[in-house]
Amino acid sequence: MASIRSWLSIRTGSPFSIANIPFGIISTKASATPRPAVAIGDWALDLAEFSANNGFSGLSTIQPHQAVFSEATLNAFAALGRPVHAAVRKYLQSVFLLDTPFPDVLKNNKSLQNSALLALKDVQMHVPFDIGDYTDFYAGLNHAYNVGVLFRGPSNALQPNYKHLPVGYHGRASSIVVSGTPIRRPRGQILENPAAEKKVPIYSACRKLDIELELAAFVCKSNPLGAPVPIDEAEDAIFGVVLMNDWSARDIQAWEYVPLGPFGAKNFGTSISPWVVLADALMPFMAKGLENENELLPYLKQRSEKNMYDINLKVELATSAGNTTTLSETSSRNLLFSFPQMLAHHSVTGCNMQVGDLLGSGTISGLEAHQRGSMLEQNENGKTAIKLSGGEERKFLEDGDTVVISGACGSDPNALVGFGECSGTILPALKS
Amino acid sequence: MASIRSWLSIRTGSPFSIANIPFGIISTKASATPRPAVAIGDWALDLAEFSANNGFSGLSTIQPHQAVFSEATLNAFAALGRPVHAAVRKYLQSVFLLDTPFPDVLKNNKSLQNSALLALKDVQMHVPFDIGDYTDFYAGLNHAYNVGVLFRGPSNALQPNYKHLPVGYHGRASSIVVSGTPIRRPRGQILENPAAEKKVPIYSACRKLDIELELAAFVCKSNPLGAPVPIDEAEDAIFGVVLMNDWSARDIQAWEYVPLGPFGAKNFGTSISPWVVLADALMPFMAKGLENENELLPYLKQRSEKNMYDINLKVELATSAGNTTTLSETSSRNLLFSFPQMLAHHSVTGCNMQVGDLLGSGTISGLEAHQRGSMLEQNENGKTAIKLSGGEERKFLEDGDTVVISGACGSDPNALVGFGECSGTILPALKS
Ligand SMILES: [Ca+2]
Ligand SMILES: [Ca+2]
Ligand SMILES: [Mg+2]
Ligand SMILES: [Mg+2]
Ligand code: NI
Repeated sequence: MASIRSWLSIRTGSPFSIANIPFGIISTKASATPRPAVAIGDWALDLAEFSANNGFSGLSTIQPHQAVFSEATLNAFAALGRPVHAAVRKYLQSVFLLDTPFPDVLKNNKSLQNSALLALKDVQMHVPFDIGDYTDFYAGLNHAYNVGVLFRGPSNALQPNYKHLPVGYHGRASSIVVSGTPIRRPRGQILENPAAEKKVPIYSACRKLDIELELAAFVCKSNPLGAPVPIDEAEDAIFGVVLMNDWSARDIQAWEYVPLGPFGAKNFGTSISPWVVLADALMPFMAKGLENENELLPYLKQRSEKNMYDINLKVELATSAGNTTTLSETSSRNLLFSFPQMLAHHSVTGCNMQVGDLLGSGTISGLEAHQRGSMLEQNENGKTAIKLSGGEERKFLEDGDTVVISGACGSDPNALVGFGECSGTILPALKS
Repeated sequence: MASIRSWLSIRTGSPFSIANIPFGIISTKASATPRPAVAIGDWALDLAEFSANNGFSGLSTIQPHQAVFSEATLNAFAALGRPVHAAVRKYLQSVFLLDTPFPDVLKNNKSLQNSALLALKDVQMHVPFDIGDYTDFYAGLNHAYNVGVLFRGPSNALQPNYKHLPVGYHGRASSIVVSGTPIRRPRGQILENPAAEKKVPIYSACRKLDIELELAAFVCKSNPLGAPVPIDEAEDAIFGVVLMNDWSARDIQAWEYVPLGPFGAKNFGTSISPWVVLADALMPFMAKGLENENELLPYLKQRSEKNMYDINLKVELATSAGNTTTLSETSSRNLLFSFPQMLAHHSVTGCNMQVGDLLGSGTISGLEAHQRGSMLEQNENGKTAIKLSGGEERKFLEDGDTVVISGACGSDPNALVGFGECSGTILPALKS
């Protein structure tokens, strides 16, 4: 896609090109009230301010709904539905065009530029939705296989259900935090020697603190309890996508998770990137995902084979000693099930989805070692060490480590549809 | 405890004696706005109306906070803390006393009686809290053992972690419904022949629809992310308790739950009783729970040995043919971990609990067959049939069946601290 020129100076390589227009919730020193914004280049356009100053004068369809831009979350905007999100995005793109048909709205309106275009470095980002429920899936086939090999060997690596349904579990919504929030190393029960005959746990700081590279999608459409969402309607229920780091305490997880799944090993913090890239902005980047040799049941069959996003993903680790290493680079095509499939499966028994629900993809790993989205896979559950730049090594995360996930679609550096960053720094465990 | 007399006529055997004073959220035909109330005898005292008409004139501590009684949920009232809940309950008890020190508030105020005392049969009940997150534990030792025997045999019935920590998993908050809400039989993936070599699921209506008899506690205190709740403070975080039926699709569950736990088999509906019995009202009924031969880690050690509620619980099944059978009678002492222990464990890795969170106990079963809290245990996973009155039989629930859980503390029929009912009727599955 040829890049589109704007009257606003957008630096080459910005994840927030005019082709993107992601939505988030901001606050500033001058105004502590959280409110919606879009990111463009190095700026946030404050939609509360923009809307209050006739910014939407050229888009009549949104005018009766402008109260959504004074909300502290994106829930109300999301609930307006995908045609409205698409119209607002397209209108805002047109406002920023070099040859904008609406020059008086912002291009020639210095006063509104001053009050509504805020430098990204000066805005505080917030969790963009009131998240009613958060569900984490496990659709990263390579990750599931790699972890299965480590714990059960290659012949039983995947459970019999794995390719028939998007395996998932309910997660903890309250501990979802926005990028930049520090993560406290958890304490909990671990088995010091899992091989010992007698299983007696100790109370300890986590010794196997890990990351999980994931995407996550926000839901924008609700269904009543008892009424599953048909797969053909599920796409309309996906508002947009963020990057997610599902921090994981592997030693706590190993002891607690049989038979009811991960619990305290996951609920101490889950980081998401602050700018939600609209599903519409991702449509030019649809691609085929991983092959599934199984015939899916009809409720999971999507019309298009190109049901995955092709997002280039990167995980970097910065140590407190100042060394930064790329841990992983992969593509979000490495998923066996799409978000619409996850949503159709989530609701198949009748579960009521709600606007603002968050669906995690599961850890995304490619086939190669340097494409793996967790340290557990890279170090074979602590057997080998990961070499970092500057001569450092890691099995799992140490205190002071900062993990930064980034991702973007596209190759034209002036037309990237990017996510920015999802980062977090490990704080030492509390004294017991 | 000798029963206390009231100027209000409270029928013998009422679960809502003057010793109780449970809180709920009501609406009426005349006023559709949901608002807080307490139950007493066959009446609900509308606290919005009571508060607006100087009902709390005798309790100065609540006066600055009376806005909580105009809220549509109990979250704001709960957030005031247990000393306030206790003071409000005690004050309301005194208002209803035969020799009330505040006769002008209600006893001699016919006008307020007419507007604020509403017949229970005329009020609509609502889910009493905005539930941010719901977690279901598995602390019913006998249930866990019985199910373990069915699936793994007696020597491996309990997992090694079972007696060291309250096993639990995150549940689905959106599908929690109030007693009386019909439950649609779910459809989903099941294995028709689990013993077959090749595991190929079919899409089917659930054939093993079951109940789980549980208690559930609402949380009234929040902790910041990264700061676990010490066990000695956990009791202060329990607002009160309801009865819960964790409807379960056993065939869907068996296929989906390895390795990440139950998902669609549980998220199609979870019923709770509408009146929340305050933790303070339950204090006279504390008793010892089940023995745990393991030494617990300090973060789980509670000061008092009497850390369980002694609630007499009953499950009844009414068929569409008109036969009603008592399926189970047991006591809530049949738990290995208490709600404060669950909360301490839930937060041990740093998870932030929030006001309105709901904690399920896990299925409560006694040792005897007629004390088992699920049909799965009573029918040995479908091997035997449960005999009902009128010559009917059941393995699992049929369409049109109504399950009613009830429970009460105490033996004096004029001083019961009861929960009322948690009921639900099975609707047929949707056409596929
Ligand atoms: Ca995950
Ligand atoms: Ca349960
Ligand atoms: Mg929720
Ligand atoms: Mg929640
Ligand atoms: Ni909420």
